[in-house]
Amino acid sequence: MAFSDEQSISREELALAARNHGMPLEALRYDITPTGLHYLLIHYDIPVVDSAAWRLELDGSVERSLLLSLDELMARPAVTQPVTMECAGNGRARLSPRPISQPWLLEAVGTGQWTGTPLAPLLEEAGVGGDAIDVAFTGLDRGVEGGVEQDYVRGLAVDEARRPDVLLAYALNGQPLPPQHGYPLRLLLPGWYGMAQVKWLRRITVLDEPFTGYQNVKAYRYRRTPDDDEGTPVTRMACRALMAPPGIPDFLSRRRHLNVGPCTIVGKAWSGWAPITGVEVSADGGETWAEAELAPRSDGRWSWRGWRFAWDAEPGEHELCCRARDEAGNEQPLQAQWNRGGYANNAVQRVAVSVS
Amino acid sequence: MAFSDEQSISREELALAARNHGMPLEALRYDITPTGLHYLLIHYDIPVVDSAAWRLELDGSVERSLLLSLDELMARPAVTQPVTMECAGNGRARLSPRPISQPWLLEAVGTGQWTGTPLAPLLEEAGVGGDAIDVAFTGLDRGVEGGVEQDYVRGLAVDEARRPDVLLAYALNGQPLPPQHGYPLRLLLPGWYGMAQVKWLRRITVLDEPFTGYQNVKAYRYRRTPDDDEGTPVTRMACRALMAPPGIPDFLSRRRHLNVGPCTIVGKAWSGWAPITGVEVSADGGETWAEAELAPRSDGRWSWRGWRFAWDAEPGEHELCCRARDEAGNEQPLQAQWNRGGYANNAVQRVAVSVS
Repeated sequence: MAFSDEQSISREELALAARNHGMPLEALRYDITPTGLHYLLIHYDIPVVDSAAWRLELDGSVERSLLLSLDELMARPAVTQPVTMECAGNGRARLSPRPISQPWLLEAVGTGQWTGTPLAPLLEEAGVGGDAIDVAFTGLDRGVEGGVEQDYVRGLAVDEARRPDVLLAYALNGQPLPPQHGYPLRLLLPGWYGMAQVKWLRRITVLDEPFTGYQNVKAYRYRRTPDDDEGTPVTRMACRALMAPPGIPDFLSRRRHLNVGPCTIVGKAWSGWAPITGVEVSADGGETWAEAELAPRSDGRWSWRGWRFAWDAEPGEHELCCRARDEAGNEQPLQAQWNRGGYANNAVQRVAVSVS
Repeated sequence: MAFSDEQSISREELALAARNHGMPLEALRYDITPTGLHYLLIHYDIPVVDSAAWRLELDGSVERSLLLSLDELMARPAVTQPVTMECAGNGRARLSPRPISQPWLLEAVGTGQWTGTPLAPLLEEAGVGGDAIDVAFTGLDRGVEGGVEQDYVRGLAVDEARRPDVLLAYALNGQPLPPQHGYPLRLLLPGWYGMAQVKWLRRITVLDEPFTGYQNVKAYRYRRTPDDDEGTPVTRMACRALMAPPGIPDFLSRRRHLNVGPCTIVGKAWSGWAPITGVEVSADGGETWAEAELAPRSDGRWSWRGWRFAWDAEPGEHELCCRARDEAGNEQPLQAQWNRGGYANNAVQRVAVSVS
């Protein structure tokens, strides 16, 4: 992993930014992110899949392997739930030194209305062995990472895979999965960062030993010091609030311009660890804070929670900030907590606003 | 307009790249770009529109002004047509010195299956005056550009606005327009760059004098020398071919890795000026060229044309290139033709491939 202290972004980082999509922050106004505005991080290429020929294999340490068509999966009990998903690298380009990878600022998030069939009953039908430890999820996407040609594969503890809200999802916002979201089938593991939500799923393998693949052991680990080579795994989403920047933007700088007077700032907050308990807003760059009003919790545990804040905008230059906290006692930091991979940087958002 | 000779990208450019979406180039395999993969350039913010309250005004130099609801527009004769759309700034970040704006590499393109009602009969019903020169199209999006707060407005010659294939579009790929593509209504002007395809359309004004708004007179002009302040207008899409990079990518560098042996390279080609007549491919960085096979033209004039090229990949490092030409005699250049705004850089695509 290379680093850069510079403000400037390399051509390699730009090539990644040109193909991976952020969610424009004004889309925080929607409870469900319209298809096409949800963030996208595509490790390799989007595969073209013939869904008639496609099958899902479930094998490994099970009593009986299963081979399932898309029709067979869609004939099983279906669950629809809104789930907020964030890239583990969201905020990476705000770290210093900056880890060189997809240079996300704040936009790598979205909330889909996902439909799928629960995974737990399928594991039950296959008969997971008593020695099972991990479950490996393999996608159809293939590329080179860390110098090694590989399929995209992620491992997950078998108890986590058995959670009742874990889905094999085949629809987003009432439509078949778009190719870029994993058509025909993806894993949906609510509360976790996006790297765990394996797209273009082709195989689920129950293992009676720990999974040691690249995405779990090399990538997606918190390594907080230069000599920490092992690190700890990246799992659930850190607590975060984001606001839709108020007013209107300057095209080039994206700086916000706002009229004097009352203004309602709106946004969303989420945490993979526990329900959100509060959001605070600062209009002076974090010197003083006031509580925002949380929207009623109506969308279940795994969707972001809306919030609003009445602000009386006075003439001049202001820096708006917001920060969330959750039931487990997590709160967003004012300063980023650096790690080598640039994961989970949930330092508070800062929005410069000119009021006149 | 600022410039940079450096390879590195500024934070302002990154902020634009984080919110505007490119089409990942593997999506060149689709004739119709799946919703969510089409490129997006949002000048200001995506407005939230209440379509029940929304109306389209048609006014100015007409015998009778019209005020139309979305239902009224959808009750009129409907046309569905595939149209390729490209951002005028596509290729900007490949220029040197690099104009500072949205730093597109090659991905700012897509082909939608658009549905709408033709504009010409509406202009006819309103009774366009004999002195009419231009038509101004105003969107609901508002921002600051060149230091001036403004709505997004584009002017168009009245004869161009009367072309029979110009649509007021309310659907994309069989669904209502997504918010980011201009819900509830946008202009569709086949053959032109994206800046002319005004989104979130609220007003059409017939003018009996030339339109002098910012987007036509200040932005979107070819200024080919440092002292050319007037320039000439950016209009139709230059001739271009792009390939879906073959093989598999390295995650970080996006460099392609390919197996030895026969390989079919596929891509698309388009020109706003005239039908595509040929595409050539080079496997040696542009030293030698061979003709690709064009797909039958079945999708009408305004959709890109598919092409394929059989390549026998030999071990080693190669640079693949492709270039298109059209019936009007346009051909893609090997070297970029610089201009101050960074528009219409259709220099040939170059894809580095490692074969082993």
